[in-house]
Amino acid sequence: MIIIGEKINASLAGIKPIVQERDRVSLLELAKTQAAAGTGFIDVNVGTGVGSREDEIVSMQWAVETIQEEVDIPICIDSADPAVLEAGLKTRNGRPSLINSTKAEEKNLGQVVPLACQYNTPLVGLAMDEAGIPKTVEDRLRACENISAACEKHGVSLETLYFDPLVIPISTDVKQGLVTLNTIAQIKRRFPAAKTVMGLSNVSYGMPGRTRLNAAFLHMAIYAGLDAAIMDPLDEALMGAVKTAEVLVGKDRHCRRYTRAFRD
Amino acid sequence: MIIIGEKINASLAGIKPIVQERDRVSLLELAKTQAAAGTGFIDVNVGTGVGSREDEIVSMQWAVETIQEEVDIPICIDSADPAVLEAGLKTRNGRPSLINSTKAEEKNLGQVVPLACQYNTPLVGLAMDEAGIPKTVEDRLRACENISAACEKHGVSLETLYFDPLVIPISTDVKQGLVTLNTIAQIKRRFPAAKTVMGLSNVSYGMPGRTRLNAAFLHMAIYAGLDAAIMDPLDEALMGAVKTAEVLVGKDRHCRRYTRAFRD
Repeated sequence: MIIIGEKINASLAGIKPIVQERDRVSLLELAKTQAAAGTGFIDVNVGTGVGSREDEIVSMQWAVETIQEEVDIPICIDSADPAVLEAGLKTRNGRPSLINSTKAEEKNLGQVVPLACQYNTPLVGLAMDEAGIPKTVEDRLRACENISAACEKHGVSLETLYFDPLVIPISTDVKQGLVTLNTIAQIKRRFPAAKTVMGLSNVSYGMPGRTRLNAAFLHMAIYAGLDAAIMDPLDEALMGAVKTAEVLVGKDRHCRRYTRAFRD
Repeated sequence: MIIIGEKINASLAGIKPIVQERDRVSLLELAKTQAAAGTGFIDVNVGTGVGSREDEIVSMQWAVETIQEEVDIPICIDSADPAVLEAGLKTRNGRPSLINSTKAEEKNLGQVVPLACQYNTPLVGLAMDEAGIPKTVEDRLRACENISAACEKHGVSLETLYFDPLVIPISTDVKQGLVTLNTIAQIKRRFPAAKTVMGLSNVSYGMPGRTRLNAAFLHMAIYAGLDAAIMDPLDEALMGAVKTAEVLVGKDRHCRRYTRAFRD
């Protein structure tokens, strides 16, 4: 499992001032603790919800530059704005990165997929289009087909694509957990070369016992074929859930990662 | 999910003397606590591993009679010996029961499946044959096909059949967790009218953190399509895992069972 550390996200209350005030020490602390916890990528989202596009571009340059000066870890450049994505990619200057993300929407695909090609960087594709997140597995797969077609058109290999099936809180519609899980399973069947990625915490929004739900959903998603998760790598319950699920589905060959973690 | 309480099993160290010494009070205590915990069936296995076939028959009659005098709950009559199964069924005298079990082996099928028909009682069919537990999903499904064919021959409806995919410890072969889970999913696809049942604790045999593994495996199995589990209904972690998995796969319509359990 590839863990994408989610903590550097300026839409979170505690992170917004770090970005706005260019708080280098706190930013690096967030990057270093996540790296030490076994994160494969550090997600960087500097969208504060206020300020201009230019602000977000400059913030992305600052955050990426600050992190890569001291922490040698792949960065997941996270923005809905292709110009911000490109600013991050330019600052990375060829270092390992992940573009997060494109929707299955013509204009968005036409701007973001070429970046994946030009910067030779893997890409997250969201199973949603201009109409929002589809309610059914079939419609989410149709969105994935559109992303796949755009990648083929722009010469981006499916092997560098991470499909995100998207997660809707079960508190709003109790059938949506199963829709996400079945979308993962179907993506793995239809696009065996591609990977899957998911930000899971949304599933438990509005429910009690969120960690319990998130961990159980992670178990199920890993069985369904999840390759990567956008999550808090400092959450020991979730990191334990990854190791537990992986040993149960045979991805921990000699049970060593699991046994090392839970020997006591 | 149907919970089949596993605690009355004379192969367990603490239970053997209860059966041998006809300890009515302890037997009823085990039945009553399991019933109070929300068990759908109480499993009764009186095979002590010593003594004759006649001993096991008399023990089964005693145990079933003792329980049904005071506890009004379906009993899962558990033995590898068809004569013991029939003794239990006769003692039940038409009360709700479950026959546990037949293997996909000609002689066993020829003796046990007619009991399911004659006593109009649902039946557990194990995905194994004379050669033991198959290592692959395909071979386990072949065993299920043989059980299904015997049921058809003897006029036993698939709706009253519980297929048990069987569980081999991952400590002996790390790929076997996935084989069991994929067998469940394939059974649900190939025999949509039938149910699935599993005794899950075997998966974690020889590993540290067994409850953690059992709960995670239960999450995955419920997503794969598990309908019933043979387990300890007094294990709060496992009973919580059932409620958590069910709400995530949309089987707890208004999230009420989950919310009632984990509100605090």
